[in-house]
Amino acid sequence: MGRVTARRRVSRLVAGRATERGETLVVEEPLEIRVNGAPLTVTMRTPGSDVELTQGFLLTEGVIAHRDDVLTVRYCRGAADPTPDDAGLNSYNVLDVTLDPAVAPPTVDITRNFYTTSSCGVCGKASLEAVRLSSRHSPGDDPTTVQAATLSAMPAQLRSGQRVFAETGGLHGAALFDATGTLLAVREDVGRHNAVDKVIGWALEHGRIPLSGTVLLVSGRASFELAQKAVMAGIPVLAAVSAPSSLAVDLATQSGLTLVAFLRGDSMNVYSRADRVI
Amino acid sequence: MGRVTARRRVSRLVAGRATERGETLVVEEPLEIRVNGAPLTVTMRTPGSDVELTQGFLLTEGVIAHRDDVLTVRYCRGAADPTPDDAGLNSYNVLDVTLDPAVAPPTVDITRNFYTTSSCGVCGKASLEAVRLSSRHSPGDDPTTVQAATLSAMPAQLRSGQRVFAETGGLHGAALFDATGTLLAVREDVGRHNAVDKVIGWALEHGRIPLSGTVLLVSGRASFELAQKAVMAGIPVLAAVSAPSSLAVDLATQSGLTLVAFLRGDSMNVYSRADRVI
Repeated sequence: MGRVTARRRVSRLVAGRATERGETLVVEEPLEIRVNGAPLTVTMRTPGSDVELTQGFLLTEGVIAHRDDVLTVRYCRGAADPTPDDAGLNSYNVLDVTLDPAVAPPTVDITRNFYTTSSCGVCGKASLEAVRLSSRHSPGDDPTTVQAATLSAMPAQLRSGQRVFAETGGLHGAALFDATGTLLAVREDVGRHNAVDKVIGWALEHGRIPLSGTVLLVSGRASFELAQKAVMAGIPVLAAVSAPSSLAVDLATQSGLTLVAFLRGDSMNVYSRADRVI
Repeated sequence: MGRVTARRRVSRLVAGRATERGETLVVEEPLEIRVNGAPLTVTMRTPGSDVELTQGFLLTEGVIAHRDDVLTVRYCRGAADPTPDDAGLNSYNVLDVTLDPAVAPPTVDITRNFYTTSSCGVCGKASLEAVRLSSRHSPGDDPTTVQAATLSAMPAQLRSGQRVFAETGGLHGAALFDATGTLLAVREDVGRHNAVDKVIGWALEHGRIPLSGTVLLVSGRASFELAQKAVMAGIPVLAAVSAPSSLAVDLATQSGLTLVAFLRGDSMNVYSRADRVI
């Protein structure tokens, strides 16, 4: 549990000369999420913040809305686990969530329709419609504004908060800021969707859903999936260091989400609701 | 179909000054893959090379082994499609694969156990074991060697082959080379796993599975999933521009796959089967 990095031997070649050494790598391990005992999904993630990841995932997939919707989250070693570790201990790779009886458990279809990296339909329009129907929040109504200079300062804050990336170079980062640029939370993961779910799960734990008045910054590109997660959590501004996709822009436009990308130095592109950037 | 880029309006801010302009973005759209009429999975992808993507996915998930295992692949508009486009035309986002009757269709569980970015078990050891059990090829037996200088020249070849990345900055790339450094195929996608599946699907179409004697280069990081795809296609060398994860290194070590990462300039790290790099 919490083994975020691991050491491995490596042969380092520079200009044809080889040296052997140890290297620190980011750990990647599967996490199985169960709801009321039934397997829901498996995601490859970096261990740590697993409870946040799980609750953030359930929120952004529309299963839960509040912290009270979850009664318990606990590690278990399922009967289906074929290889307990050598000591016969809990592998800390299966989390079981017990929902409040008033909350409808997800259907099996969720693994196909709302899977971690999948979409919700068979065309872009259907994907947009699915988010519109399932979101409980409307970022479009959020009156938040943020200074361009405040946005420009955020990538450096994210990087300085990415402890493990600095060590391994192998992790995506996500950070949540308030509109004045104060850093609220940073999380890292081998999967960028997981880093975002961890940050949103942190907010759920702290009773901050919907996340009005905040900016979500991601270290890479802005895909449809990341825009979907921002909308589902009620975040009004999503900023990315790299490029957005067409469908991310379309979802942002439909939802009233401010989408900023190519956030580098003192420049940025704003694809929707540019009135929030002052 | 094949709409790889799209234009959107953007507000460009530099040092506090805004200008409005059009920008070219990479297209992201869902693709639903059906097998013998039954929905199997949905992946967010960049349109184009959909048949390659689908066949590469089925190969790397262990469903098919040869081109002859597939009778037909055709676009369809499924009955479940809630929003056909305005002209009522095929949205080119659903592909139906008809397998040879001798090939066992995938079980529903495949969407959970072998999903695009998921793993096959509840701990790293189980994930490794699942690949060992399902792979028809053994990269470890491949006598291929490759010059370090040949590897060092590959990232520039990949970049020059990434037409759409140059335009949008929004795409992952995957390229297949022979051991002398000749480029065989390049494919791009918003999802790195999709770019790899497209390249492997290309090889299936050309009767080149197992891909002995080849090098697969990816533009980003080397995750477990990408190492899994290389092993399933019988590729002996996987090279990445950025960092590997612990589980990717463990799978490469178990499978006899040469894993090269941080391939930059004339330097690189070799994590397994370094004897192939000369």
